[in-house]
Amino acid sequence: MTYCVAIKLNAGLVFLSDSRTNAGVDNISTYRKMIVYERPGDRFMVLLTAGNLSIAQSVREILQVEQLQERPDTDAITIRNANSRFNVGLIFGGQIRGEGLRLFQVYSAGNFVEATTETPYFQVGEYKYGKPVLDRVITPETPLDEAAKCALVSMDSTMKSNLSVGPPLDLVVYEANRFQTDKIVCLDMQNPYYRMLHSSWGQKLREVFDSLEDPVWDDAHTEVPLKVPAGRSKPLKKITRPDERLI
Amino acid sequence: MTYCVAIKLNAGLVFLSDSRTNAGVDNISTYRKMIVYERPGDRFMVLLTAGNLSIAQSVREILQVEQLQERPDTDAITIRNANSRFNVGLIFGGQIRGEGLRLFQVYSAGNFVEATTETPYFQVGEYKYGKPVLDRVITPETPLDEAAKCALVSMDSTMKSNLSVGPPLDLVVYEANRFQTDKIVCLDMQNPYYRMLHSSWGQKLREVFDSLEDPVWDDAHTEVPLKVPAGRSKPLKKITRPDERLI
Repeated sequence: MTYCVAIKLNAGLVFLSDSRTNAGVDNISTYRKMIVYERPGDRFMVLLTAGNLSIAQSVREILQVEQLQERPDTDAITIRNANSRFNVGLIFGGQIRGEGLRLFQVYSAGNFVEATTETPYFQVGEYKYGKPVLDRVITPETPLDEAAKCALVSMDSTMKSNLSVGPPLDLVVYEANRFQTDKIVCLDMQNPYYRMLHSSWGQKLREVFDSLEDPVWDDAHTEVPLKVPAGRSKPLKKITRPDERLI
Repeated sequence: MTYCVAIKLNAGLVFLSDSRTNAGVDNISTYRKMIVYERPGDRFMVLLTAGNLSIAQSVREILQVEQLQERPDTDAITIRNANSRFNVGLIFGGQIRGEGLRLFQVYSAGNFVEATTETPYFQVGEYKYGKPVLDRVITPETPLDEAAKCALVSMDSTMKSNLSVGPPLDLVVYEANRFQTDKIVCLDMQNPYYRMLHSSWGQKLREVFDSLEDPVWDDAHTEVPLKVPAGRSKPLKKITRPDERLI
């Protein structure tokens, strides 16, 4: 599978992708799912791909070839003739001089949505495990490096729960109005920062869990009783009558 | 949708289910997905259901009617004539006097798996959001009330991310070799313990996140540099050549 996430902030853009590709659990490879297009001082763009690997590669190829042929429709990604076997998800974002930051999610059929203040990030691939931390942290005001940290925690949660998402990780941090970046890094599991994040997050989550009070079943002995105040909702009926004899 | 979780511990069993049923987001109802069978001092069992509501209700009904007819196959759940439209997931567990604790997950086709020391919990329905905390906390040695707390945190994460999982929640804690329980509670969102858990978990997660160091891009100024040590993995190639003119 795949997990890619991209975040649009007031301060810039963050892109993160895994690189595991699998055709069944017995056939695992490593392919980059991120491609960076940069014309320093003029424009900077990043493409993230999920879905069928051959389709994703074809789409990239077509995008670049189309441009070589100077086709006019360069300002939006259009994927034509999608059919039911056409399985690909793209995230595409960046900035062109004279314009603002933009971030898009493109679906298999070629339709797309753009990130907004209310929806500042997009995910493709295995999105569920890594979504809660994004929802808790990311707003347009989040600083770039904090958002990069959040993307890495999101990726870490995903890799912990889905073996088909794996390292190395490609991370790009783009600062608004720079039209280039040096903050491009490929992280394997030996990277000291990633290792710190991975172990600290796991350990501290456990400490938070332990710090929360266990439920107490006797109302008299706790500030936060588990029992529902009378009348608030119906207790569950047990089936104990002799004519219901499953037991 | 639905989220149900059941945990088998040395100390007993924990069962938790939501109660939201929906046929599209514009048609939401509340149905209990948990049923408790108890013959005090002799046996105690709980059934959790996910999937198509009418099928789940039919399965319960058949189980109880079959028993009324004194059919011999009472010690396993068999669901026959499953076809492709048959969408239901069950968790069934409990204890009969003279036997150990048992917990099963039953699939639509009627086949089933039993919980073990290595796999001490089962989930049905929307399982992904609530799985990480279970993986971090639950072992067979976990005390009952701590496991109940873990199940509630797992449910809370699920409800935060999937609107089709919702309150009230039905929670049962069964202590081994008691063959009955009084620890059965229906929790709505006003329950003081649940409110404490919900707000503390969210707030403390955020504190943990904030306590982790942001990445620093200059190796010279940090103990945990983000840059990959030379040679460890290949940096991502930017496309900047003039003949690759997407940009």
